[in-house]
Amino acid sequence: MSVFSLFGHCPLVQIVATALCHSDFHYLVEFTPKENFPIVLGHEAAGIVESVGPGVTEFQTGDKVIPLYLSQCRECRFCKSPKSNHCENSAPPVPIKAEPDYRYTCKGKNVLQFLGTGTFSEYTVMNQIAVTKIDPAAPLDKVCLLSCGICTGYGAAVNTAKVEPGSTCAVFGLGAVGLAAVMGCYVAGAKRIIAVDINPEKFEKAKVFGATDFINPKDHNKPIHEVLIEMTNGGVDYSLECAGNVGVMRSALESCVKGWGVSVLVGVTNMQDIAARPIQLIAGRTWKGSLFGGFKSKDGVPQMVKAYMDKKVKLDEFITHNMTLDQINDAIELMKHGKCIRCVMSFSPQ
Amino acid sequence: MSVFSLFGHCPLVQIVATALCHSDFHYLVEFTPKENFPIVLGHEAAGIVESVGPGVTEFQTGDKVIPLYLSQCRECRFCKSPKSNHCENSAPPVPIKAEPDYRYTCKGKNVLQFLGTGTFSEYTVMNQIAVTKIDPAAPLDKVCLLSCGICTGYGAAVNTAKVEPGSTCAVFGLGAVGLAAVMGCYVAGAKRIIAVDINPEKFEKAKVFGATDFINPKDHNKPIHEVLIEMTNGGVDYSLECAGNVGVMRSALESCVKGWGVSVLVGVTNMQDIAARPIQLIAGRTWKGSLFGGFKSKDGVPQMVKAYMDKKVKLDEFITHNMTLDQINDAIELMKHGKCIRCVMSFSPQ
Ligand SMILES: NC(=O)c1ccc[n+]([C@@H]2O[C@H](COP(=O)([O-])OP(=O)(O)OC[C@H]3O[C@@H](n4cnc5c(N)ncnc54)[C@H](O)[C@@H]3O)[C@@H](O)[C@H]2O)c1
Ligand SMILES: NC(=O)c1ccc[n+]([C@@H]2O[C@H](COP(=O)([O-])OP(=O)(O)OC[C@H]3O[C@@H](n4cnc5c(N)ncnc54)[C@H](O)[C@@H]3O)[C@@H](O)[C@H]2O)c1
Ligand SMILES: [Zn+2]
Ligand SMILES: [Zn+2]
Ligand SMILES: [Zn+2]
Ligand SMILES: [Zn+2]
Repeated sequence: MSVFSLFGHCPLVQIVATALCHSDFHYLVEFTPKENFPIVLGHEAAGIVESVGPGVTEFQTGDKVIPLYLSQCRECRFCKSPKSNHCENSAPPVPIKAEPDYRYTCKGKNVLQFLGTGTFSEYTVMNQIAVTKIDPAAPLDKVCLLSCGICTGYGAAVNTAKVEPGSTCAVFGLGAVGLAAVMGCYVAGAKRIIAVDINPEKFEKAKVFGATDFINPKDHNKPIHEVLIEMTNGGVDYSLECAGNVGVMRSALESCVKGWGVSVLVGVTNMQDIAARPIQLIAGRTWKGSLFGGFKSKDGVPQMVKAYMDKKVKLDEFITHNMTLDQINDAIELMKHGKCIRCVMSFSPQ
Repeated sequence: MSVFSLFGHCPLVQIVATALCHSDFHYLVEFTPKENFPIVLGHEAAGIVESVGPGVTEFQTGDKVIPLYLSQCRECRFCKSPKSNHCENSAPPVPIKAEPDYRYTCKGKNVLQFLGTGTFSEYTVMNQIAVTKIDPAAPLDKVCLLSCGICTGYGAAVNTAKVEPGSTCAVFGLGAVGLAAVMGCYVAGAKRIIAVDINPEKFEKAKVFGATDFINPKDHNKPIHEVLIEMTNGGVDYSLECAGNVGVMRSALESCVKGWGVSVLVGVTNMQDIAARPIQLIAGRTWKGSLFGGFKSKDGVPQMVKAYMDKKVKLDEFITHNMTLDQINDAIELMKHGKCIRCVMSFSPQ
C-alpha cells in the first residue's frame, strides 16, 4: 500500500504507536456498511513528521505529532467560539467518497481513511488542521492514547459535565474512555465516583483511577438507576455513559438527581434512538453529549501531554498490552472479549 | 363546597382572579385517571389573604399574594442550592390521596386540590411555602398570569436556556407559555426569534412580543427542523418547545445548531417518550427542561411583578378574554379550539 499523494496543506506522518479504540471496533464489527470498505482504520496514535506539503507552515520534519480525528482549523465559526470544540472543516465520521479522501491506494485501488487519520499504517497523510505538535520529550507509545480515548473520557467529565468538587458521579462502562472519565471526576474533586460495568474484571482498574464504589448491574434484579438512586439518596450529580448503548444512556440519565443532575453521552452508537420521559428533563436534568471530551483538539492535546509529563494525569495504567501492528487482530479479539483496556501497537522502536 | 380546615402553616386566601392554563386543560381532558377526581383545578391566580393559621408568620390578613404550584420552602437541599428551583416540599404534580391534601369537602365528600393550589374556587387554603407576597399596588387580574404561564415561558428563555444577545431562537407553540418565551428571548437580546405554530392565528400576537419570523409547519412539505436549519444556516442557537408534544420536542432539538445549540422542553406531556439519535447530543447540543421557568418561586414571582409594574415585561397583551368563574367551561372550549391566549376569570371586583 502506498500513500496516494502529498497535498499542499498536509504533512506526511510516520506513525510510531497506535492504539485500538472501540470506535475502530464499532466501525469494523458493528457498523459495516459494505460501501465504506476498503478502509484503513485507526485514529488513536502518535508519530513523527516525515515531510510536508508546500503549503504546510506549522510543521517540519522531525516534529512529534498527534493525529486529530476532530480537527481545529481555527477559522470556522465553531473554532472561533469558546462554546464548542467542533470544527466545520473536520473530516466526516463516515468517510465520503470524494476524491481528496483517497489518500491511500493499494494494488491500484483507492482505499478510504478512517476519520481523516487512518493510523493503522506506517505512514499517513493528514490535513494539517488534523495534526498537533507536542513536546518532543513525550513518549509516543504512551501519549498516543491522548489522540482519542483518554482526552474523550477525561474531558467529558471536566469540560462537558464540568464536575464540581464534592460531587457524586457515576460512570457507566469502564473501557479506556470510562476509566478516563473516572480519572476526570477524580481530578475535578468528586467525593464519590460510582463505577458501573457488566464486566467485574474492570473494577480493579477503576479503583486505580479513583472510583469509590463498584456496581455490576447483573448483581441486581432491579433497574440500575433505582440502585443508584437508593445508594445516593436521590441520584448522582453527574453521570457519564461510556458504553455506547442506548439503554445504558437512558439509565444514566435516570440515575441523576432531579434539580441539577447532568448526564453526558460519550459512548457512540447511532443505529437506535435514545429515549426518556419528558419529565426527566422538566424535573431539572440536563442531557448532553461530548465529542473528544469537549477539547479544542489542537490546543487541548498538547496541554494534556504536558499534564501527563507533569504527572497530573495517568496514561501508563490504561495500557494492558504492548504489541506490534501485525497483531491487530489479536487486539480486536481482546477488545471483543473485554480483556484489554488499551492495546498499544508499535511500528518501530522510538 | 367548603374549605376543610385551616392548618397551622397555611394561609386562607381569597382568590380574586384566576386564569386557565393548558396544564389544567391537560389534566382535565387529556390525562384523566379517574381516581384523581373530584378535584378543584386551577393554579394560575392571585388573591388576598383572608386569615392565617397560628403557625403562619410571614403573611397577614389583607396581603396581596400569588399561589405557587412549585413551592419554595427555603430549607430543602434544592431550595438551598443556586443550581435549581425545585423544592423537595412542593406538592406533587398529581395529588396523592393523603389526608392532608383534602383541603376541600363538598357534600361531605373529600375533594382534591390541583398542584397544592386549586384556584378555581373563591377561597383556598395553601401551605405558606406555596404562597408569595407581592406589591400591594399590583393589579391582581393581570399579575395572576405570573403564577404560572408567563414566568414559565419567560424564565425558560432567560433562566434555563440563558439566551444570549445577538442569538437566533425558535419557539414552538405560541400559547401564553410560548409567547412568554418569545418575550424572554426578546428581552435577552436575541436578534432573530422564529415563532412556530400550526395555528397561524397566533402569529400576530407573537409579533407583539418580539418574534421576527413566522413558520407554520403545515405550509411546508419537509420536516420543520430542515426548514429551520436552512433558514438559519445550520440551526438555531436556542429552541424552546412550548406545545407539549414529543414529536415537536424532537424537532426542536433537531432544529438547533451543532456545537452549542440548547433545546429546552417547556411543554408538558408524560405519556410518551422523547427520542433522538445520540449523535444529536454528541454533536454538541444540550437537551434541558424547565419547570416554572427556572424561577425560585417565592423570590422570583415578586420580582416579575415588579418588572411588570416597571414596564419591563408585558402581561396585558396575553389576556384575550375577561370572564367570571362561572364561564370556566367557555374558557375550556376557547383553549380547545386555540381561540384564546389567556382567559382571566374574576370572582369579585378588586
Ligand atoms: N464521544 C467521543 O468522542 C468518543 C471517542 C472515543 C470513543 N467513544 C466511544 O466510547 C465508548 C467506549 O469506548 P472504549 O474504547 O472505552 O470501549 P471498550 O469496549 O473498551 O469499553 C466499553 C465498556 O463498556 C462496558 N459495557 C458494555 N455494556 C455495558 C452495560 N450494559 N452496562 C455497563 N457497562 C457496559 C464493557 O464491559 C466495557 O468495559 C465506545 O462507544 C466508543 O465508540 C466516543
Ligand atoms: N414546564 C412548566 O413549568 C409548565 C408550566 C405551565 C405550562 N406548561 C405547559 O406548556 C405548554 C403550553 O401551555 P399553554 O398554556 O401556552 O398552552 P396553549 O394550549 O395555549 O398553547 C399551545 C400552543 O401550541 C400549539 N401547537 C400545538 N401543536 C403544535 C405543533 N405540532 N407545532 C407547533 N405548535 C403546536 C397550539 O396551536 C397552541 O398555540 C403546555 O404543554 C403546558 O402544560 C409547562
Ligand atoms: Zn477513538
Ligand atoms: Zn474549525
Ligand atoms: Zn424547598
Ligand atoms: Zn400552568
